[in-house]
Amino acid sequence: MVGNCIKNVRDTVPLVHNMTNYVTVNDVANILLACGASPIMSDEPKEAEEITAICGGLNINIGTLNKRSIEGMFRAGRRAASLGHILLLDPVGAGASRLRTDTAIQLMEQISFDVIRGNISEMKALANGSKTTKGVDANAADAVTEEALEAAVTFAKTFAKKAGCMVALTGALDLVSDGEACYVIRNGRAEMGKITGTGCQLSGMMTAFLTANPENKLEAAAAAVCAMGLAGELAWERMQQGDGNSTYRNRIIDAIYHMDEEILESGAKYEIW
Amino acid sequence: MVGNCIKNVRDTVPLVHNMTNYVTVNDVANILLACGASPIMSDEPKEAEEITAICGGLNINIGTLNKRSIEGMFRAGRRAASLGHILLLDPVGAGASRLRTDTAIQLMEQISFDVIRGNISEMKALANGSKTTKGVDANAADAVTEEALEAAVTFAKTFAKKAGCMVALTGALDLVSDGEACYVIRNGRAEMGKITGTGCQLSGMMTAFLTANPENKLEAAAAAVCAMGLAGELAWERMQQGDGNSTYRNRIIDAIYHMDEEILESGAKYEIW
Amino acid sequence: MVGNCIKNVRDTVPLVHNMTNYVTVNDVANILLACGASPIMSDEPKEAEEITAICGGLNINIGTLNKRSIEGMFRAGRRAASLGHILLLDPVGAGASRLRTDTAIQLMEQISFDVIRGNISEMKALANGSKTTKGVDANAADAVTEEALEAAVTFAKTFAKKAGCMVALTGALDLVSDGEACYVIRNGRAEMGKITGTGCQLSGMMTAFLTANPENKLEAAAAAVCAMGLAGELAWERMQQGDGNSTYRNRIIDAIYHMDEEILESGAKYEIW
Repeated sequence: MVGNCIKNVRDTVPLVHNMTNYVTVNDVANILLACGASPIMSDEPKEAEEITAICGGLNINIGTLNKRSIEGMFRAGRRAASLGHILLLDPVGAGASRLRTDTAIQLMEQISFDVIRGNISEMKALANGSKTTKGVDANAADAVTEEALEAAVTFAKTFAKKAGCMVALTGALDLVSDGEACYVIRNGRAEMGKITGTGCQLSGMMTAFLTANPENKLEAAAAAVCAMGLAGELAWERMQQGDGNSTYRNRIIDAIYHMDEEILESGAKYEIW
Repeated sequence: MVGNCIKNVRDTVPLVHNMTNYVTVNDVANILLACGASPIMSDEPKEAEEITAICGGLNINIGTLNKRSIEGMFRAGRRAASLGHILLLDPVGAGASRLRTDTAIQLMEQISFDVIRGNISEMKALANGSKTTKGVDANAADAVTEEALEAAVTFAKTFAKKAGCMVALTGALDLVSDGEACYVIRNGRAEMGKITGTGCQLSGMMTAFLTANPENKLEAAAAAVCAMGLAGELAWERMQQGDGNSTYRNRIIDAIYHMDEEILESGAKYEIW
Repeated sequence: MVGNCIKNVRDTVPLVHNMTNYVTVNDVANILLACGASPIMSDEPKEAEEITAICGGLNINIGTLNKRSIEGMFRAGRRAASLGHILLLDPVGAGASRLRTDTAIQLMEQISFDVIRGNISEMKALANGSKTTKGVDANAADAVTEEALEAAVTFAKTFAKKAGCMVALTGALDLVSDGEACYVIRNGRAEMGKITGTGCQLSGMMTAFLTANPENKLEAAAAAVCAMGLAGELAWERMQQGDGNSTYRNRIIDAIYHMDEEILESGAKYEIW
């Protein structure tokens, strides 16, 4: 029952600590509020441990990492892990620079994440050390399409096992796996790729979903992916002539604001492989 | 005449220096432009004093403070005070970490602010050292409701006297006091709490209102609170089916853009205790 | 054929590295996506050279410069120049602080930019060391109006020659010159000045236009200016009663999202002096 997962967010109002990039941070905060969670942002090492301690989940996104915030990420990550909090890693641009790839890999080595969420180019960079990343968007050659689905599911399961945590691999199709099962999710629209930060927003929301559904993490991660994709579909129906990516961004967050258990349950399109 | 206060902003176009968090900074800039002011953002210590010197008001918001920006805040704050500029402190998340509480208290000790604006949890953290802050939102137990109004007014007056400056305490009801009088303001809507940064926006706008009305600071601070709440009411009337918190954010700034003396004067709902 | 310039952006999807301020960075990313380019943001010195190496253009905007990001700008700038990439400088607030003026001038001395884009107050600060800048907006006395046009064209040409690169001087009228020819552009609306970051957005988009049209840089720079101004005109036509600067911001990016070769070619209003 993926629908139940958003209900639990609204019922428990999880406080999510976001160490995220300054490009899309405002949208991350607003989508967390829209889904019923409460966001706090902080990346200063001097307070990172204390801030994360009062939260239930920690969302680490390396989109505009810097020397100071990296230190904060390790500090907050270790503390959150020691407290049994939900931990998510969004390795934005892994593969695009050594600093990004190394930071993501070291975070994975030193901190036990619940889930890593990224596009397939980023995941391959972490899994294989391959450098196919073109900026922060997935390489076309890496696209998860119906044709390449079986290979992608195998990759997701293998990488999840190797990483020792769930993997949420988002693209044309979205995959969420814990190494055993794999949700294949068909919500969403290609036009979402023309908005900056839909991935970052999903990472924030997924952290909230896991925090509110700790007994049911795989389903919660899949539910967050379904919710984001479904919001993209519902928002698109409200687009009027002349509306473009900036308005679409607002409408997606608005759609999350109105999403309840029934809407998510009936609109989620997934199968389990 | 609270309405006159926004007219004076539009007539004098005050330049406001904002040392504010990277989460809501774009909305702060746009609402300052919407109300007729001119924003500039800078938090680098090396230029903080020079930048603030060309402005009329300084808005210090510790929402995503870091070691570097804290140094900038002290430098700019001291210079602005020495020049007789308007100074506002928004102690975002005071009580949520020692760094935030200590920084806010030290700023209050070393710099003479005109007004401190925050929610009641933050204010209590500053007043009592109590740690009831849950993230950046006010604790439910701290809500300023009709039932708790008298106690809240007493708190606002007492804290204003102790701090030696005006206090703007925003929540379900909003209070603005200089230690003697206290404006009790009933504009606004609960849904504004589902938008990130309405408080930060108010802090920016309040700095502009005070800068443009230096002879009448208490009324100017109250006028800014009324303007923000009234914008929330007017924006809500324009909400259409399916609109959520992201669109609401835009409509609130839009409502400020169209707010003139008459709209504010006739829509402001306040009494003076 | 300015229209062709946007077609080339959509056809080649240039990857643009933005070292830009945290105030308007989200809008810069979204307008780059809207025009068909792909944005990446990074200002950490440790990865600046590597990130810029995978891009085609580099947009340096000093709107919220700090000690760390300045080091990143010099590193990325030198690498981008050595690789023959497109380089744009947006000297936000030059003249408002010594740090801004000096950083912009040192960047110009050490790195060969293709184009400098700013308002006339900023340009004068760079050209003459004059300090007429009031915050980040152009001084009224500096406005490029029909009356002051001839003098402004002369200034643009002279400054372009002196700086050894193109100059894009934006205001009521926009000028783009390589020292020989000067495009005088009459697209745009005054209300765009009530939105934070239309200049920053233009700088991002101009970098993409030049990257996609390397054989035709002067026309590409002018085309970007025409596109931004035309988007402001088209967006204004879609404004409804009660819409203000926040909605206008969204509609401008939306208008770029829908702009194609024909729309730009037929809507561009310019002459070459």
